[in-house]
Amino acid sequence: MATYVNPDSARTDGVGPVHREVSPEQQAVEQRLVDNVIASFDACGDARLKELMVSLVGHLHSFIRDVRLTEEEWGAAIDFLTRAGHITDDVRQEFILLSDTLGASMQTINVNNQAYQAATEATVFGPFFVEDAPRIDLGDDMAFGAPGEPCWVEGTVTDTDGNPLADARIEVWEADEDGLYDVQYDAGKRAGRAHLFTAADGSYRFWGLTPTPYPIPNDGPVGKMLDAVGRSPLRAAHLHFMVSHEGARTLVTHIFPEGDPIGRKDTVFGVKDSLIKRFERQPAGTPTPDGRALDGTWSRVRFDIVLAPTGI
Amino acid sequence: MATYVNPDSARTDGVGPVHREVSPEQQAVEQRLVDNVIASFDACGDARLKELMVSLVGHLHSFIRDVRLTEEEWGAAIDFLTRAGHITDDVRQEFILLSDTLGASMQTINVNNQAYQAATEATVFGPFFVEDAPRIDLGDDMAFGAPGEPCWVEGTVTDTDGNPLADARIEVWEADEDGLYDVQYDAGKRAGRAHLFTAADGSYRFWGLTPTPYPIPNDGPVGKMLDAVGRSPLRAAHLHFMVSHEGARTLVTHIFPEGDPIGRKDTVFGVKDSLIKRFERQPAGTPTPDGRALDGTWSRVRFDIVLAPTGI
Repeated sequence: MATYVNPDSARTDGVGPVHREVSPEQQAVEQRLVDNVIASFDACGDARLKELMVSLVGHLHSFIRDVRLTEEEWGAAIDFLTRAGHITDDVRQEFILLSDTLGASMQTINVNNQAYQAATEATVFGPFFVEDAPRIDLGDDMAFGAPGEPCWVEGTVTDTDGNPLADARIEVWEADEDGLYDVQYDAGKRAGRAHLFTAADGSYRFWGLTPTPYPIPNDGPVGKMLDAVGRSPLRAAHLHFMVSHEGARTLVTHIFPEGDPIGRKDTVFGVKDSLIKRFERQPAGTPTPDGRALDGTWSRVRFDIVLAPTGI
Repeated sequence: MATYVNPDSARTDGVGPVHREVSPEQQAVEQRLVDNVIASFDACGDARLKELMVSLVGHLHSFIRDVRLTEEEWGAAIDFLTRAGHITDDVRQEFILLSDTLGASMQTINVNNQAYQAATEATVFGPFFVEDAPRIDLGDDMAFGAPGEPCWVEGTVTDTDGNPLADARIEVWEADEDGLYDVQYDAGKRAGRAHLFTAADGSYRFWGLTPTPYPIPNDGPVGKMLDAVGRSPLRAAHLHFMVSHEGARTLVTHIFPEGDPIGRKDTVFGVKDSLIKRFERQPAGTPTPDGRALDGTWSRVRFDIVLAPTGI
C-alpha cells in the first residue's frame, strides 16, 4: 500500500519526513520486496525472534525508503560498521558507544525500567563496572587514592512505601578528576569504586569524588560521527550507583551535579531531571560530617534511593 | 502523538504489531528521549547527514519501543555486530551479507534504479565483481575453463526507444557448477568472467555456463541467523551482468533460469519476474549456433537488455 513515509519521522524531528515523488509503481516494487523479506521469516519457530526480525526489517526498509538512501551512502554505512568492528576488542566496544550515542542504550533502559510510583529512575550502565570492587564500611572512602575533590555522599534506601531497606547492597563507581576510570589505567587497578551495605535504618554514607565531565573514547568511527554532526563526545559529570535488595528491582543509575555545563548535552543521553542533585561545595576548613579535617574544598550531596518491587 | 507502534509492522507481517500496555507516562519518558537524541543533531551543518541521522534514530528507537527490546536482546545484538565485525576482512564482508539477507541491499538498488518505461530491471551487485576481467570478442567463451554446462547467451542492447546501442560494454560473471567464483579459489584467478562490446546493431553473444544455485558464506553470524530463523543460505542460480553505454544509466543485474527450485527463495531477494529467463537445455549433439560440436548437453538463453537514459 501507499505510504512509505514513516509517520514517526514527522513527529519530532523539525526536519519533517522526506516527501519525494515516488510513483505508485515504484512504491509497489519497494513494498513487494518488504513483503518478500518479511515472508522469509514465516518458517521461524521462535515466535519472539520472528517478531524481532520482522520489526527490524520493517524499520530498516522504511529508513532506506524514507531517506531514499543512495548506493554511496549504503557503502559508507557498510564501511562504518566494518571500522567499528575492527576497533572493537576486549577493552574497547565501539558498537556499545554507537548504541549509547544514538540513545539506543538509554531507550532500552527506559523500556525495561518503567517508572513505578516514586521509584528512583534508572540510567545507562556504561562499560566501566567491575564485579570485584572492594567492600567498604559506612562512612569509608571509595576513592582509594583516585585524584579529585572529596565528596560526602549520604542518603537512604527505601521501598516505594517508604519502608527502610536494611542491608541493601550499593555499588558505586566513578571516573577521577582526569576523566579516567581505574581500569583505564590498568585492568587490575581498583580505585574510585566500592560496594557497601545500608544500615538497619536504610541509611548509607561514604566518601567519593565530586564528579567531573569526561569524553567517551572518540578516536574511532563513533568519534568521527560525533564530529561530523557537530556533537561533543563529553559525558555529563556523574557518579554511578547500582542498588540491589531482595524483593526489589535492581536499580542501575547515576547522579548528576546540578549546574554541570554539559548536563542535558550528555553524549549518551543518560541525564534525567530527577537524577540531577545539588552537590554543595564546602570552603576549605569546613568541618566534615564525620569530623575529618580536609586541607581543601570538599562537596556533599544527598541521594535518597527508592527501589521498585520486583516483577514490575 | 501517543502511538509508538510502527504502522509498517502492522501491514504485512502476519504477526501484527506489538500491542503491549504502556502507560502514557512511560510513553512520554520514551518520547522525550527520542526528542533529545534528535535535537542533538541540530548543530549538524550537513543537511543530508542530519536527515539520515534523524531518520535512523527515529526508526531505531521505534524498533526498540515496538518490540519492547529486553536488555538481554540488546546485548545479543551488540554481540552479533561484534562477531560480524571480527569475521570481516579483505575477502569476507559479513555486514554486506547481513544487508543482503535482510533485503537492505536490494531495497537500496530499488530506490536508486527506479523503473523507467521498458528499461531492464536492476538487482544486487554482489561481492564478486572484479575490475580487470578479460576482454572477449563476440561469440567467445567467458568460462576460461571454469567447470559447468556450456550456455550460449545472446541478445541486444537498446535504449528505451528501441534504438540499438553499439559498443555498449557488457561485464558478465558467474559461479562455476561447484558454486564458487574464480576469486574464491585464488584472488588472482580469472575464469567465469569477461567483458565484451555490442556489435553495430546492438547485438551480443558469448558462451558462459548454465547457472546453478549456491550458498552464501554461512559459517559466520549471518549463517547462524539464517539457521535460527529457518532460512536457507542458497542464492537462486544466476548470471551477473553490468551494462554501460554513454548517455545511459548503468545497469547492474542478473538473469535467473526459469524453473530454478530456489527462485523466489533467493536468500538475498534478488529475483524479479522480469529477470527470470528460459534457459533451454539442448541434447548432446545438438548443433550450436556457432557451429561447435559439444560432447554433452548445453543450454541457450536470450536476454534483450534495455538501458534507461542517465539522470532518471
